[in-house]
Order: sequence, then structure tokens, then C-alpha cells
Amino acid sequence: MRTVDLITRKRDGEELAAEELQFIVDGYTRGEIPDYQMSAFLMATFFSGMSDREVGVITELMLRSGETLDLSDIKGLKVDKHSTGGVGDKTSLIAAPIAAAAGVPVPMISGRALGFTGGTLDKLESIPGFRTNLTVDEIKAQVAKIGLAFAGQSAQIAPADGLLYALRDASGTVESVPLIASSIMSKKLAEGIDALVLDVKVGNGAFIKRQIQARELAQIMVAIGRRANKKVVALLTDMNQPLGYAIGNALEIMEVSQTLQNGGPADLVRLSLELAARMIFLAKVTPTIEDARLLAEQKLLDGSGFKKFREVIAAQGGNPRVLDDFQLLPNATGMREISTPRGGYVAGIDAQLIGQAATLIATKEDAIDPAVGVILDVKVGAKVDSNSVLCRLYYRDDANVEEAAALVEDAFRISVNEPEKRELILEVVS
Amino acid sequence: MRTVDLITRKRDGEELAAEELQFIVDGYTRGEIPDYQMSAFLMATFFSGMSDREVGVITELMLRSGETLDLSDIKGLKVDKHSTGGVGDKTSLIAAPIAAAAGVPVPMISGRALGFTGGTLDKLESIPGFRTNLTVDEIKAQVAKIGLAFAGQSAQIAPADGLLYALRDASGTVESVPLIASSIMSKKLAEGIDALVLDVKVGNGAFIKRQIQARELAQIMVAIGRRANKKVVALLTDMNQPLGYAIGNALEIMEVSQTLQNGGPADLVRLSLELAARMIFLAKVTPTIEDARLLAEQKLLDGSGFKKFREVIAAQGGNPRVLDDFQLLPNATGMREISTPRGGYVAGIDAQLIGQAATLIATKEDAIDPAVGVILDVKVGAKVDSNSVLCRLYYRDDANVEEAAALVEDAFRISVNEPEKRELILEVVS
Repeated sequence: MRTVDLITRKRDGEELAAEELQFIVDGYTRGEIPDYQMSAFLMATFFSGMSDREVGVITELMLRSGETLDLSDIKGLKVDKHSTGGVGDKTSLIAAPIAAAAGVPVPMISGRALGFTGGTLDKLESIPGFRTNLTVDEIKAQVAKIGLAFAGQSAQIAPADGLLYALRDASGTVESVPLIASSIMSKKLAEGIDALVLDVKVGNGAFIKRQIQARELAQIMVAIGRRANKKVVALLTDMNQPLGYAIGNALEIMEVSQTLQNGGPADLVRLSLELAARMIFLAKVTPTIEDARLLAEQKLLDGSGFKKFREVIAAQGGNPRVLDDFQLLPNATGMREISTPRGGYVAGIDAQLIGQAATLIATKEDAIDPAVGVILDVKVGAKVDSNSVLCRLYYRDDANVEEAAALVEDAFRISVNEPEKRELILEVVS
Repeated sequence: MRTVDLITRKRDGEELAAEELQFIVDGYTRGEIPDYQMSAFLMATFFSGMSDREVGVITELMLRSGETLDLSDIKGLKVDKHSTGGVGDKTSLIAAPIAAAAGVPVPMISGRALGFTGGTLDKLESIPGFRTNLTVDEIKAQVAKIGLAFAGQSAQIAPADGLLYALRDASGTVESVPLIASSIMSKKLAEGIDALVLDVKVGNGAFIKRQIQARELAQIMVAIGRRANKKVVALLTDMNQPLGYAIGNALEIMEVSQTLQNGGPADLVRLSLELAARMIFLAKVTPTIEDARLLAEQKLLDGSGFKKFREVIAAQGGNPRVLDDFQLLPNATGMREISTPRGGYVAGIDAQLIGQAATLIATKEDAIDPAVGVILDVKVGAKVDSNSVLCRLYYRDDANVEEAAALVEDAFRISVNEPEKRELILEVVS
């Protein structure tokens, strides 16, 4: 078997056999296939795609390249939730505590910020002392004890995916649907879960801009799950404006706290509750999805989701009082308001531009400042007068503020016409 | 400028600006852009193609990456001929001596065997003592003196192409029309020629299988030539069966000798004369192409092409007597006949399989044995009885003979119906 022949056949649209894909993935992981052949293979895959069988095989190969968690000792069906990444998307930090409070064991392994989107790990680490580098044993013990752990991906889990991901990032092959699907699913299947709720983001603030592509990605991931005997449900959700009002690590922790105390923005509450309900239903805590929705709402209203989040913070080395006293979180020192020169309706808020602005304010040399970001004053559909504030930039270092302000100004579209209402949850794939 | 952004834009079908292509080609040649990004760029180019302007720019960049010959001291219009590669294609060794005998200065820089196709340099080096590693000064001196030199590409000429070619070979991106075109034309433009005759091979024994693709390649190369003020003519010629009867380095030198002495196979004579005539006409030795055809034929018939080839062999260190006494060439020691089990018409001879068989017999560890190969007894259209010989395998080591024989047997298609006659010269692009 020659690597160049396999590249050529993938390029020409042929389906590769399981042992051929194994030759490539294992050979690359062992360092026998050079980066320059793998990147050509990835680009050929970008154009030629992969059959369902091929995606299943490479997911399995990446999964088996490392360790897998065995959570079979823990009672109940283990369920995780994963988002493909958006701007202001802090639903994991709301839905997971609510689901755990309802009795679902949740071993959640999350990622870091990618491009203009935020990362669950980065948000959690803005809480002083919070540890995300849990060992496999620590994850198990914590899920057994309090039903929820937030951890980062260790080098032990799906190392082939780690290698491939870095190469995709440098070779212009991130946006391949089969490669995204196998990357997500290999990590998730390694967690020892029984079921998974996926939030596939669609729109200008997501990596996938079109619903038809998001559906394809969702279908592939659901099929991979089915093949591995895991129940997977995917929600396609709108990411054409930021979710909630806060964008920025510590700012989002504050909004999570408010939301878990029943003071959250409508869109964030709506989506978080639906994701929690899907988790509860997949865990078979309730017989119907309607019952699961009622239970999720109850666990939000009665404060048990909030209590669960405090427990998790304490268990992972943080001080839960940050949720009551925001001064205990990193705080910005400067603030700048962005106003609209004319009145009308907010017709659009480009989430990618807002995400880029937030990243820009937070970037200082190689480090990310967790204290800073953007807080919206309005959402799409709001009626504004001329000179009213659209959003505020929070910063500690004013080096990039001018540039960020320009991005944010470009992000808002003001129109004389009231925009049509957009659905938040576009479609469910299962 | 970031390499990954340029890869992504090429992937998405955008046209890159001249300075963007320069960033990539120069950066790669200087070792600043890693192989894994370049191979992804090449695969993206395979799928997205290049505009005429882009192909012109990268040809120029590769050409300028090294030295160029200055042949302006030599009187007359310098003309070269280049083939995209076929099986049994020894036309360069016939057409160039005939054109030179007619007064055309020919500085021919050739390549080595590639995949299942033979290389002009390898064929010439089967002549004991024949030197192809001429310096730029030696090429100039020899063309000035006897009108013809056969040389290999030195590291001084288009080094960027050399680097890119090796990467394409390993990354499954050889068969890209703009990359083939720029690779050929950068080397040919570096030779200091005034005009060029291209033989673009089409069919199962060529890298390009379909006439529409061959036409595209020809059109692109002609356009590159026009941009550089060089007159380029391309013939699209059939490569669905080997050219002539002999396939193998020394075996082909013998067939060249016979052909230059008026004993050659009809297809080989026909194509070699047409290529020589095109060279003569482009050099403005004759006022019309018809006159050029008559002159080429005359230079074949009166033996002056043969005499010119002897002169070149002597000038480059070989013994011209090999053309009279084939025992002075490397000779095979074993022979095996391949016969047909049933009678009928020879409906097809798969040139790729014949080329692969010849390569297989000749390969011993890493070396190529110049003595061995395949000699056909019949060509497409011949009527054969059952048990009549179709071809003979000549070998020195019988290690791969069984496998080669099986390939050759698969190559012949025998039918009860007489096949339709196929054109040898399909189309002219200029």
C-alpha cells in the first residue's frame, strides 16, 4: 500500500476501505506518514468528501488512538452536550448543571476558544482557582459524587485527533464536514457516554454558515453515534447574532450566574432549557420530552441548577462565591459605549464581527485577558433612538480598543423596517 | 499575508494576485513555507484550477527561480520539442536530428522516466559513455557547432519546479493541468529558445486520458508561450497503444537507428516527421509547413538525420557505432514470447500496461536495467491466428518476468471484429 495512491484515489472520489484508512490514520499518528502527504489527503477529503462508512471508520480509528473512559460503574445513562462553537454561547454552563440537578450524570470534556468563538474551558478558568486539567480518575470520581465534571481534553484522549486538528488548522482544511464530524465524535465517544446532545450552530457567528451544511454535519454525527450504539440528537440553532448579551470569559460567567438565578436573557434561557431537556430525556429520567422540559424548567426555577454549578466550582478548586460577588472575578478597568448615529430597528448583529472584536480586546501578546469583552445593550428586533447605546466594550488595556470599536460598529445593522422574527431552534436531527 | 489564508482562498476558487503567488512560490523555494502547506495548496489547485493569468505568473516565478540560457549568439531561431510522456515514445531522438540536419538549432533539455513512461535521458544513457549532464556552456558550444545537444535539467534551471515536482509526485497532485503546464513551460522558457513544438499525449498510455483535458493543457501552454513572446505549437497525439514496436531503453535506441535509416514503423515515422516539420517551420527555415514536411522527409531519406544523430553521440562521449552494431549496446540474455490463445483482430494494446510491464522487467532493486523491455510483434488492427506471437519480453533477470507477462497478456484485446482506424495526430493547437 502506498500513501500517494490512497491520496490519489480519495482525490478521484473513490471510497477507501477500512484497512486503507487505518494505514493512513495509524501511519500518520506513528509518524510514518509525513505531514505533507497527510495535508494533501485532508484537502482531497475536503473536496471529495467521505462516505458514511468512511467517516465511521476514521472516527473509530481516532477514538482508538488513545484511552477511553469507562463510566460503567456510575449508575444511570451518562449524557454529554457539545456545541460546534458560537459567539456568546455559554449554554453548556447552564444546561449541564440543570441536567445534573435533574439526576443526569454528565462527564463533560470541553474545548478551548477557536477563532472568533469562545471556549467553555476558558470561561471556567476565569474563575480564580478553577482546575480543568482533571485526570480520568478525577472525572470519574466527581461524576460519581456530584453528577457533573467539566474537564479539558487530555493528551490521553484521541491523540490522533489532536495531531490532525493542528494540521487542519495550518492547511486550510478545518471546514470539512466529515473531518469536523469525526473530530467531534471521536472525542465524545472516548468519554464513555451513553448519549449526546449536539448543538450545531448555523450562521455568520458559526463555522458553518448554511443550514444545509449544518444538517449534513448533524446527520453524519447522528449516524456515527448510531453505529457506536450511542443515542445522538442534534439541534440546529441560529448563530446570526450573539447568544445572550455577554461575550467574554468572565462576563459570560456573570451572565451564567444571572441565568441560573432566573434573571437571564430570553434566548439563552430558551436554548439552555431545551438542551437540558434533551439531556434529561436521553438519560431516560423522564418518559417523554415534554416531561423533561417541565423538569428542566423546575430545576432552573427552584435554584437547584444554580446550586449544582456552585458544587462543581467548589469541587474543582474555585470559590463559588464568585457567582454572588462579581468583584471576585477578574474585572475590566475601562469601558467604552458604542452608540447608533440613527434611530430605527436593530436588523442584524454580525456575531462573527462581535466575536472578533471581543477576541481583539482580550488579546495581549500571547495571553488572553479573561476580564474583558463586549456586553450588548440590544438584540435583533429592538427599537433604538439615534444616539442610544448599542453595546459596551470592557477593557483593561486600550491598545486594541479603537480597532475593536470599528468592528463592533460594522456589526450592527440599523433599518427603518422591523426585521422578521427568526427562529432560534431551526431543526432537530436524530 | 498568511499562507493558510491563501490556501483557503485558492480552495474556495478565488484568483490569487501576482504578489500572493510570489509569496507562496518564493516562500516555498526559500524553505519558509513548509511542505505540508504547499501540498495542501497544490491539492487545492488540483480542484480549483488556475486562471490563465495565475498560470502565467507561476510559470514566470519558477523560471526566474534559476538561471536561463542565453543562446542569442547562435544564428537562427532556436526550437525545441517536448512530449508530455508516452510509452515507446522515442520521437525526440528522430525528429531533433532531422530538424537539426535541416538547419534548425535545437537545444533539447529532456527528462527522465516518469511512472510507466520512458525518459529521453534514460534512453540516451543506454549508449555506453553517453553524457547528458552538460553544463550550460557545453550546451551552447555544441548547439553552435553541430546544431543539436541532448542535456538533462541541471539544478541551475528552474529549481522551484524541481522542488515542486518532487512534492507533487508524493502528494497525488501530478495530474493538475495548470501545474503540468507551468512545470513544462518554466523549464522550456529557461532554455533560451524562440519556439517550441509540444506533443501532448492522450490515452491510456499517457498521464492525460481525455482529449478535452489534453486540449486544455495545450491551450494553456500555447498561451504561456504567447505571453513570453515564444511561438508554441502543440500536437495532440494518440497514446492508446505504444508508439512503434520497441519499449525499453536500449531497444528503443535500436528502433531509432532503424527509423533514421528508413526502416522504421509507420506510426513512428509519421509522427517524427510531422514533429520535425513543425520545428523546421517554426524556425522559419521554409516559408510553408508543406515545404517543411518535404524538407523533413528529404533529410530522413538522404540519411542526413542519421548522420546528425551519430555526430551528437560522438560529441557527447558515446560510440556512434552502436547504431550499426547493436551488440555494442546492453543486450538482454533471456526472451519470452507472449502468444494469443485465439485468433482475430488486435483491437487494443493498453499502453499503460505495456509500459508497466517494461518498467517491471527493468527494475532490479533501485537500478534500471537499460538492456531489457518489450518488443511488439503486432500493432492495433493486425489480424492474428491463434497461437501467433503478440510480443516478446527481453530480460536479464527473470525475477519479475512472470508478473510482467501477466500484465502484457492483459494488455492485448483480441476481437472478431476489425477495429476502426484511429487517427494518430488528433488535433493541432497553436
